[in-house]
Amino acid sequence: VATLNEAISGISPVDRDAAARADERQAQLTKPLGALGMIESLGSRLAAISGTFPPPVPSRPIVTVFAADHGVLAEGVSPWPVEVTAQMVATFLSGGAGINVIAGEVGATVLVVDVGVATPIPAQANGSEPNRLVSAKVRPGTDNLLRGPAMSRAEAIQAIQAGLTIADKLVDRGADVLVTGDMGIGNTTAAAALVSALTGWPPRAVTGRGTGISDEMLEHKVEVIDAAIERVAAAHDVPRTALSQLPADVLLAELGGLEIGGIAGVVLGGALRRVPVLVDGVSSLAGALIGVALAPEAVGYVIAGHRSAEPGATAAMEHLGLEPLLDLRIRIGEGAGACLAVPLLRTAARVLSEMATLHDAGVSESTEEPPASALAPGEAAEFPLPLSDPALGWDEI
Amino acid sequence: VATLNEAISGISPVDRDAAARADERQAQLTKPLGALGMIESLGSRLAAISGTFPPPVPSRPIVTVFAADHGVLAEGVSPWPVEVTAQMVATFLSGGAGINVIAGEVGATVLVVDVGVATPIPAQANGSEPNRLVSAKVRPGTDNLLRGPAMSRAEAIQAIQAGLTIADKLVDRGADVLVTGDMGIGNTTAAAALVSALTGWPPRAVTGRGTGISDEMLEHKVEVIDAAIERVAAAHDVPRTALSQLPADVLLAELGGLEIGGIAGVVLGGALRRVPVLVDGVSSLAGALIGVALAPEAVGYVIAGHRSAEPGATAAMEHLGLEPLLDLRIRIGEGAGACLAVPLLRTAARVLSEMATLHDAGVSESTEEPPASALAPGEAAEFPLPLSDPALGWDEI
Repeated sequence: VATLNEAISGISPVDRDAAARADERQAQLTKPLGALGMIESLGSRLAAISGTFPPPVPSRPIVTVFAADHGVLAEGVSPWPVEVTAQMVATFLSGGAGINVIAGEVGATVLVVDVGVATPIPAQANGSEPNRLVSAKVRPGTDNLLRGPAMSRAEAIQAIQAGLTIADKLVDRGADVLVTGDMGIGNTTAAAALVSALTGWPPRAVTGRGTGISDEMLEHKVEVIDAAIERVAAAHDVPRTALSQLPADVLLAELGGLEIGGIAGVVLGGALRRVPVLVDGVSSLAGALIGVALAPEAVGYVIAGHRSAEPGATAAMEHLGLEPLLDLRIRIGEGAGACLAVPLLRTAARVLSEMATLHDAGVSESTEEPPASALAPGEAAEFPLPLSDPALGWDEI
Repeated sequence: VATLNEAISGISPVDRDAAARADERQAQLTKPLGALGMIESLGSRLAAISGTFPPPVPSRPIVTVFAADHGVLAEGVSPWPVEVTAQMVATFLSGGAGINVIAGEVGATVLVVDVGVATPIPAQANGSEPNRLVSAKVRPGTDNLLRGPAMSRAEAIQAIQAGLTIADKLVDRGADVLVTGDMGIGNTTAAAALVSALTGWPPRAVTGRGTGISDEMLEHKVEVIDAAIERVAAAHDVPRTALSQLPADVLLAELGGLEIGGIAGVVLGGALRRVPVLVDGVSSLAGALIGVALAPEAVGYVIAGHRSAEPGATAAMEHLGLEPLLDLRIRIGEGAGACLAVPLLRTAARVLSEMATLHDAGVSESTEEPPASALAPGEAAEFPLPLSDPALGWDEI
């Protein structure tokens, strides 16, 4: 198992040669160049990530849902009580949550990672395939990030290491896409604060309604985040706009997010092992920002699954130069939106290995010279119903 | 098998009660209301379409790829020669095209329908499961829509009837999602002309680059479409802006698109049989415009799979009040972009039948009252690596 320092020093840039080979192939396949849009560029990214051409077709996607609680909930930033985090963990394990349905649809398995759930997980829910729990609890919830650091720097590093260790072990066991997800009542406050600190976007521009809060609660949430940013800037004696200069683990300790730390570790682990990390909404993207701050080359291994309705997600994607695959106004977290993009990754890889080339299919070349003559004007064929001359009999359809 | 008149008179409005039951359930599931975004509204639409709650989970999606040639190719609107239509039909049958890869990924089968291919389909390609051909040729390609009607009104009706018959038979045989696709060199010219006539959008706003033509060829294509619109308006003695008042089959005869007619028939057939019709790009949407012009209630059965890069697709979707599920800049036709949305339909249906309710999962209710107190400040747990206290042993991950 890699340590955090080994991962940070061991992450290689993605393979531009493999991507170039993919691009070259796109021009030969039985379609106009570019006609598959983002599926084409995604195929090139998968080649760059794996360092092989054609890239492997993902067959074992795993959703890691990091769960943790948040001391900032004391500030009234969410209408849901803290127990819901543990209750939702139990729901993931019994298979009744949104992520279970989506993972089942796309052929992914779900691994729930308790990095900091504060209340007991209801006992009736003992996970079984394909939904399982790993306990990697750093501490039972964070402290209130408005009043002081959410956790110690050592705890922040532990959370990141937990995600890295899990990613490394999952890849050992065959995982070939790591989908990141989160659960934690109050966690969009931590995530938005981290996104603001790491991107420089102002709190108001990155703060969203999370589970769907009122205008009044949203206004309060913005104020909490703004004050927390101010607190951290003062504590480290740097201007608010220069917070991104602080070490990422320090920012995580101040404003995290144990689950955000875990996700940062998955980003590092995926990058180390050359496996795509398919990230979800604002909590996952806050994790990606931290992972990429620690190891800049890791960004090449991150694929944005969807555009969450949370504005902080858009801020983080712009900062990382990522374009999301889906845009369905999903804001459930859990890895759900990202997991829905798994078939697009498989399609992108399969296009490169399964589509015929124009040459092999015997398809004529295009030319900008207009053809010399029109079609022979067709004679209208007789057309009795049921249809004439079927290549297949109707009964065979 | 239903006749066109039977279909037009037999299409029922979608079931608003079933949709209301779906909406009600969304509020009870283990997620904040609205957190699954468009997946939620899609689930309600599937309930409305089937008239049942929960809606059935699609298990047998079929892509019907209607293929036909276009006399307007004589005007130099595409760089590809006419033979490519037949060559691509052969590629569909041998499994080497984009739609084959995508259909394979999402578990759909491909049925290619020759409604008007002008040149011989290369003989080596005899389709086999899951890629098959039905010959329903109305005539070998259309006439040049710039110089006169593309086909007779009887031929236009035959093309629509062919699509209706196929849809009806496919539903008899178990198809539960009808994905529409098209193949026809030159067909974005016909499709854009029809979209302009039926929506009132000017030719320049609905004309795109099709397979990827040059600025110069695009300019010429706009002129061809503009002149064709002018010709039809003069022939029927109506203002250009009132072309949508003409019967839809007359417009199809003037400006079609045998494959566009076939797709219009699938829209009617799906609506008649209460099966969702998942439409693709500008050719499919031109077909949907015609189908909906003939039977306005049919629009409730149409789901826009993706936003094609062709601007005419956006015009048609706005006119029909449809919001696309995907936006990947795909412009390959074939039904490819729509087919990629099949897992979203399955997910939307499964959410309604498989997710637990908050009550069943024992999840606490939300309240806008902030909680009275903070989390108990957590004691940092010891955290040796490998992780402590796993609910699963690491070897079991």
